[in-house]
Amino acid sequence: MSQAIQIYDTTLRDGTQGEGVSFTVAAKLRVAEKLDQFGIDYIEGGWPGSNPRDLAFFEEAKKLKLHHAKIAAFGSTRRASLPAEEDPQLKLLLEADTPVVTIFGKTWLLHITEILRTTAEENLKMIEDSVRFLTENGREVIYDAEHFFDGYCDDPDYALQTLEAAKRGGAINLTLCDTNGGKLVSEVEAIVGKVCAHFPDTLVGVHCHNDSGLGVAVSLAGIDAGATLVQGTMNGVGERNGNANLTTIIPNLVLKMKREMNCKSQLSKLRDLSLFVDEMANRSHDMKAPFVGASAFAHKGGVHADAAAKVKESYEHIEPELVGNRTRVLVSDMSGRSSVMMKAKEVGVDLDAHPDELREFLGKLKELEYKGYEYEAADASFKLLLNRYLNGKKDDVELIGYRVMVGHQTAMNRTVSEATVQLKVGDEIHHTVAESNGPVGALDAALRKAIAPVFPEISEVELIDFKVRILDSQHGTDAIIRVQIESTDGKEIWGTVGASDNIIEATWEALIDSVEYKILLHSEGK
Amino acid sequence: MSQAIQIYDTTLRDGTQGEGVSFTVAAKLRVAEKLDQFGIDYIEGGWPGSNPRDLAFFEEAKKLKLHHAKIAAFGSTRRASLPAEEDPQLKLLLEADTPVVTIFGKTWLLHITEILRTTAEENLKMIEDSVRFLTENGREVIYDAEHFFDGYCDDPDYALQTLEAAKRGGAINLTLCDTNGGKLVSEVEAIVGKVCAHFPDTLVGVHCHNDSGLGVAVSLAGIDAGATLVQGTMNGVGERNGNANLTTIIPNLVLKMKREMNCKSQLSKLRDLSLFVDEMANRSHDMKAPFVGASAFAHKGGVHADAAAKVKESYEHIEPELVGNRTRVLVSDMSGRSSVMMKAKEVGVDLDAHPDELREFLGKLKELEYKGYEYEAADASFKLLLNRYLNGKKDDVELIGYRVMVGHQTAMNRTVSEATVQLKVGDEIHHTVAESNGPVGALDAALRKAIAPVFPEISEVELIDFKVRILDSQHGTDAIIRVQIESTDGKEIWGTVGASDNIIEATWEALIDSVEYKILLHSEGK
Repeated sequence: MSQAIQIYDTTLRDGTQGEGVSFTVAAKLRVAEKLDQFGIDYIEGGWPGSNPRDLAFFEEAKKLKLHHAKIAAFGSTRRASLPAEEDPQLKLLLEADTPVVTIFGKTWLLHITEILRTTAEENLKMIEDSVRFLTENGREVIYDAEHFFDGYCDDPDYALQTLEAAKRGGAINLTLCDTNGGKLVSEVEAIVGKVCAHFPDTLVGVHCHNDSGLGVAVSLAGIDAGATLVQGTMNGVGERNGNANLTTIIPNLVLKMKREMNCKSQLSKLRDLSLFVDEMANRSHDMKAPFVGASAFAHKGGVHADAAAKVKESYEHIEPELVGNRTRVLVSDMSGRSSVMMKAKEVGVDLDAHPDELREFLGKLKELEYKGYEYEAADASFKLLLNRYLNGKKDDVELIGYRVMVGHQTAMNRTVSEATVQLKVGDEIHHTVAESNGPVGALDAALRKAIAPVFPEISEVELIDFKVRILDSQHGTDAIIRVQIESTDGKEIWGTVGASDNIIEATWEALIDSVEYKILLHSEGK
Repeated sequence: MSQAIQIYDTTLRDGTQGEGVSFTVAAKLRVAEKLDQFGIDYIEGGWPGSNPRDLAFFEEAKKLKLHHAKIAAFGSTRRASLPAEEDPQLKLLLEADTPVVTIFGKTWLLHITEILRTTAEENLKMIEDSVRFLTENGREVIYDAEHFFDGYCDDPDYALQTLEAAKRGGAINLTLCDTNGGKLVSEVEAIVGKVCAHFPDTLVGVHCHNDSGLGVAVSLAGIDAGATLVQGTMNGVGERNGNANLTTIIPNLVLKMKREMNCKSQLSKLRDLSLFVDEMANRSHDMKAPFVGASAFAHKGGVHADAAAKVKESYEHIEPELVGNRTRVLVSDMSGRSSVMMKAKEVGVDLDAHPDELREFLGKLKELEYKGYEYEAADASFKLLLNRYLNGKKDDVELIGYRVMVGHQTAMNRTVSEATVQLKVGDEIHHTVAESNGPVGALDAALRKAIAPVFPEISEVELIDFKVRILDSQHGTDAIIRVQIESTDGKEIWGTVGASDNIIEATWEALIDSVEYKILLHSEGK
């Protein structure tokens, strides 16, 4: 039986090297708790020597009540010609007061001579001394061999000597890093295999990057070749093209390679975890992400949608529910009857019972799509449309009129946006005005003001995404404009759409659908 | 010596199955030309049987003057129990009038019995007949074996029989498709190897998807195992998690695996091509894309940035220039200098003569880019900026103020958009008002009315493209909005840009730059 795999997450350290990725201390703590709940084995929290935020994190992290995960502090081997106990950076690593310390050392002679400007001999001592110092101070030490694959290709004997030095110092794990991230699957597989053969009694790990688009593949190849620990980040955040993506590696290991690991039982929470980490980093979630992305099990073409309705596995490589995802059928002009039926079921309307209405509805839908509406990412608008069309549902809010004004005066160096909205809700007429940075914000604010007295639940709704697409933009200012909005009330997320040759009108349509949908949710007790 | 690899691009067909991916016919034609210039071998343009847009593409594609690429039409084998010559879909494939036709057929018995609801025997006939019918009508036929890997795992003998049927029919290439996209590297490598051994005289291809995050890895494994054609899409667009990404596969094959291919000499245009395809699909470019993304060679950490300055290869797996990319050091005034100099030369301003101004200008540019302006597709705005900054050029038109009003009255079933503009041109003040479908059209019309009496050349200018992109769309209605406009006077085409948290203000900036640029062109006698 093959050994269980340990998952080492470095989202909070190497992940933050990614362009546009940063976490507040509070966000780091929440991510650490979430990773622990998911069953991750090691959580690398930061580099105490590199910035004050990481120091603050370790101070707070001591108070976390973790179930399983061990927090690791990250740092480098001691400086050349300085005893380990006098190295300020190693001292900070001890002060972080974590059960685990991970330190990286040099493998590649190019780096030793050109960057560190020291000798091959001194480098070996730096590794051994630093690991021993930390071990003697009660730390579990993981040794990260930086540029291991480049170094091994350059000088395999020396590369192995650096690992031996770490082992002599007491490292419990030797992790081989493809720091530049460009290695191919066959290279990583061969080299990891040789290292595992050389150190039959020592745990070996891999730490890979995605510069050749192979971050996941080389990590899995390392495991195949005998490594039992894999380092990576959630959603593959990280420097340049990112670290190896754990949200892809974990399901591959569990579902495809049938490997054991502590977080296996939590796999169905993988998509949640992935969304949570992006939320904490204030990044948009990648729709195309394998396993966990919104598009991962989305079917567009008529052929695939049709077949997926007949036999689910026919176009799905796994059951989406295993990773907390779900099948979606995209409604587009390429799709026919069966995808609309499936979509209707998804939003809770059974069209089997209404064969005539279905035909009429399909005609209506084609007409709307021709006008520029698109329901792929606008489930809420689609459900409202079905309700209006099939259930004769009347809207809760009736628009009498709106007016939007944007005025710019150069002498005052000022642009003002103001909107008025006049609505009928029940028998009452509400007439409101609001200002904002731009016309869309002003219209949104006036709309909320008008509705909130009758439907206070509207105050929970927040706009989280706003997209504008010009269709057939060659028509210049006469083109049709599609506006897509994503809203949330903290529990659900829903998408709505509007389309018009007037951008304000298109925005209004998407805004009012978002509000109507929230009222519908509330009336259903959600 | 190993054989040259053929690149088969299906961005325009399988790529459009991706969520949110669509091309107009005009965009498809421009992409096809660009792929040909890059040296791609096969361009799959669409499925004539599936929608009217694809039919229109093939009609227009006949007029393209391609240097090397062959256009392929895509379709399926004939229906069960219908002679090939009577199959309406095969007829449409002939009518597309392309040198190459690619048809897919079933490999997996599950699909044959459950989805097609026919027999294993009839399926073999369907494949052979369909391929033969197309071959006899003068087409080069590529056979796509759908679900080949799933089918092979289920029943290897039958899977090989389907390929034999295609070969008997006259297929010049047998392409093995991992349609569900979930296979691992080792599986694909082993199966491709067996197929190549079984068909030593026939060309074999691979068509993979990215559902396990291994789209690139399994494609490369297929090549390693003997395939000589690889199908994929630019930027990995495509259904679910996308097709295998050619912008990653091509540089891996050329730079890492040292394989020959027709487009090898164009590799330094890879990033251009990648940006162009996303532009045509109105998608944002993925910063994290391997090789071609803006972050691919961006260094953030002090350690890496410092080391990269000492020895470039120390943290870069290839020279970025090989794929048309460049090293970026984030948060540093070093970045951009040489590209700004190049760009300035491009628009006719020599910055070598102004070293101090260059430094200042770079600072100004960074500030503007931080605010959301982007000059890659806005040469006219960039030239005006240089003129204002370096030559102290005053604008010909001075804005006093504008006002835009959009009013909607449900009872009248009408939305009115009106704009007023007040400008100073020379000593005269012009105050005009205009109406249009939407606020942008109204503003454009009022602006032209105000300027035309002084600069009648403005009447020649027409807006031909208008794009809106929301930056940081998570900020909802407060996000920064970038507006890009393309204009023409019938002789030249120019791009301008505006950015603001107010869409009207951003539009105004792009509009006024377009007008100023035309006045500049006219004053230069162009």
